[in-house]
Amino acid sequence: MREPIALPLDLPELAVDLSGGLVRRSVHPSGLRVLTEHMPGARSAAIGFWVGVGSRDEQAERGDAPGSLGSTHFLEHLLFKGTPERDAYSIATSFDRIGAEHNALTAKEYTCYYAKVRDADLDGAVTVLADMVANSVLDPEEFETERGVILEEIAMAADDLTDVANERFFEEVLGTHPLGRPIGGSPETIRAARRDDVDRHYRDRYDPSTLVVTAAGAVDHDRLLDQVLAALNLSPEARWHTERSVLPVRRDQDRTETPIPNRASTTEPTRISAAPRVALFPRQSEQINLMIGTPGLRASDPRRFAFGLMNAVLGGGMSSRLFQEIREKRGLAYTAYSFGASYSDAGLFGIYAGTAPEKSGEVVELALAELQRIADGGITEEERERALGQIAGSTALALEDSDTRMGRLARAELGSGELYDLDTSLERFHSVSAEEIRAIAAALADAPLTVVAVGDTARSSLVATA
Amino acid sequence: MREPIALPLDLPELAVDLSGGLVRRSVHPSGLRVLTEHMPGARSAAIGFWVGVGSRDEQAERGDAPGSLGSTHFLEHLLFKGTPERDAYSIATSFDRIGAEHNALTAKEYTCYYAKVRDADLDGAVTVLADMVANSVLDPEEFETERGVILEEIAMAADDLTDVANERFFEEVLGTHPLGRPIGGSPETIRAARRDDVDRHYRDRYDPSTLVVTAAGAVDHDRLLDQVLAALNLSPEARWHTERSVLPVRRDQDRTETPIPNRASTTEPTRISAAPRVALFPRQSEQINLMIGTPGLRASDPRRFAFGLMNAVLGGGMSSRLFQEIREKRGLAYTAYSFGASYSDAGLFGIYAGTAPEKSGEVVELALAELQRIADGGITEEERERALGQIAGSTALALEDSDTRMGRLARAELGSGELYDLDTSLERFHSVSAEEIRAIAAALADAPLTVVAVGDTARSSLVATA
Repeated sequence: MREPIALPLDLPELAVDLSGGLVRRSVHPSGLRVLTEHMPGARSAAIGFWVGVGSRDEQAERGDAPGSLGSTHFLEHLLFKGTPERDAYSIATSFDRIGAEHNALTAKEYTCYYAKVRDADLDGAVTVLADMVANSVLDPEEFETERGVILEEIAMAADDLTDVANERFFEEVLGTHPLGRPIGGSPETIRAARRDDVDRHYRDRYDPSTLVVTAAGAVDHDRLLDQVLAALNLSPEARWHTERSVLPVRRDQDRTETPIPNRASTTEPTRISAAPRVALFPRQSEQINLMIGTPGLRASDPRRFAFGLMNAVLGGGMSSRLFQEIREKRGLAYTAYSFGASYSDAGLFGIYAGTAPEKSGEVVELALAELQRIADGGITEEERERALGQIAGSTALALEDSDTRMGRLARAELGSGELYDLDTSLERFHSVSAEEIRAIAAALADAPLTVVAVGDTARSSLVATA
Repeated sequence: MREPIALPLDLPELAVDLSGGLVRRSVHPSGLRVLTEHMPGARSAAIGFWVGVGSRDEQAERGDAPGSLGSTHFLEHLLFKGTPERDAYSIATSFDRIGAEHNALTAKEYTCYYAKVRDADLDGAVTVLADMVANSVLDPEEFETERGVILEEIAMAADDLTDVANERFFEEVLGTHPLGRPIGGSPETIRAARRDDVDRHYRDRYDPSTLVVTAAGAVDHDRLLDQVLAALNLSPEARWHTERSVLPVRRDQDRTETPIPNRASTTEPTRISAAPRVALFPRQSEQINLMIGTPGLRASDPRRFAFGLMNAVLGGGMSSRLFQEIREKRGLAYTAYSFGASYSDAGLFGIYAGTAPEKSGEVVELALAELQRIADGGITEEERERALGQIAGSTALALEDSDTRMGRLARAELGSGELYDLDTSLERFHSVSAEEIRAIAAALADAPLTVVAVGDTARSSLVATA
């Protein structure tokens, strides 16, 4: 491979290992939640301010009412542009001068502002992040400049065909569901965005009750509570409700199951139900970016552990079936993997491959055949063992980073409600039966399939369907 | 920003912080070198097998003699395809079943095979990596399959316009120098590649004398020595020469200076000498990928500390001059930064920005004006302080990862010969004078400038020059 390059290893969201760490969670009467995980020996800390608002919460234009598509992401940009106490340059220098890793991201169900800093720099980072989140002025002139930056960001993404394939895939599979929309809006909605609408979005949505602050590494919980209250100008007299070692956390979500077709739980073998729907997006290219998939599991689906194992075997590493059949045996692609993306009320299952246009039809057939093969015959015991080892090892390595732990705390609080130690989490994977693994593949094989192809589709044998 | 996204923060290669760690270096009579850094408390380790051979060591075709362009990278792929003891599938599963992060990379001056694993999995990873490096069979059938994979890899890179701009920039600035060539060869050289030539490359170049094994984290030096010898079938009787705490390491390289024009050391102000040479590469796109630069510093150049500070201020973060002028004040780009790339006998200095085609002329002018402004007036004391803090903080954070430390050991051994603790390294940055920082900007402003533009150049005001 050329430098630098990463092999695909797309593992499901896992519950977290808290060995060695201590998790504390405090809820303020305002609704503000603070979760920390102290990591003994750490000399740095990761801190995030998370707001439970994402692109899915925006409104499309309706008749006379202006839409808000792209406003969550627009707002995220504007929060770097200044408060009454700090202008944009001061915010930028406050992170740069300590060599912080810092950024923000807008996702479909949340927005996050974060920094990773040396232990001595944590107080300063908390103060600046809190000020940004609570006191942004959304200056009208900065608004216009930032409109240009966001249009350039969208143009950059439009030139990345893998990125384009991913956005089209969400739209094609989820249809009109709000989770199907691109996170950043479109050039049209960004050109039409108005400062007062984004400002209203900010005032409506950014509130202590939607805010979750998480930190991991060299962090002291009580000190952080005091700081956050002071920075947010909340009453220090009001009593926090605090829990220590809040593990395991489990809500009732295990009772719900995703509404993907599930005839597979019968003993009747299922077949990939019909010819997949094919959507072609012609672009000048050397490769076709292929995405093949179906609706998948919502975050709370009790079958997610079975899915995690199935996905690891199907397309989760160099030894996975997709990688072996498409790349190793036939040399048809450099990259081939499968993945799941789960949200509160919907999800996707997908397979990605980049391949020569002339080979794209063959790659679609190979990918579907591998999914069908697991739906028919399940996986081998050796594959199950390997998937368990892969999940155990990669999770343990990921949890060495304070940023991973900081993120898991927030996703548990805002989303899945799930926070296990590593052993408990692995037990759940171990308890999955071979039949459950086969059944989830069968359920996916039986769901309506979509193929998205972005690139020089004229040179491919793929034919668009209605 | 959309999820996930990284802000540009391109810092120079730095000497390493070894606080808390212990570096040991052993040289075997065969020439094999092993360097380790034990990190107290670590529960994982990063291990790399580094070969001091890169794409620059390849030969272009000459008359009847076949060339070897792309063979280093082709070989790197083939090393995953099997040994007498392990077939390709066995190699893949041996990493996947422990959830290792593992990969390989071919660079211009070295090739590396590495893994990051839990402490208990280190022995196994060492055994497999050693077997791959020492005993590959380069099976002819696997050779043909892998040719297809590599052609897909090159096609993938050709669709990434930022990647294309980077490769064209190296070619345009370094001309016929072997460092100017793309690492992976071209579709033509890969189609023409012959198994026996790659095999000869392997036998000629992969030898204990070119091999450096480095590890960091939960690693025991003596145990690793035994294992590496056994795996490579080298005599355990021959005496290793071992040093402990090999710090600071400094070779004589500080005496050489890169042959970029350096009239700037006079008090005469320099000007960006002439209109830059402009090379256009038309492609269907929304953005133009701009790279602007000159020959830069070789790795051993004594001015590299001054360059590191100058580069941080010019284009090394959100508060840098390029980011402020191009993005924050005018909204002309999402990304704008500067960087240096240094090799044993040559280097590059570059500025990158992605911008709308219509704005590309303006962005080139802004970028050159900022370089000229530092060449004329230097940087402020506040900027110098901030750059020092940025380098100190980001280096300390980077050195928390065992992979960073593992890589630094190898790059010091194979390349720069430089291995400091963090304090010593920071002292060298602190000792740089304001005039030295101004002078390096002036030297770069005075060097022949090249502009590379990839994208919809027809919509830009840029005009190609001869």
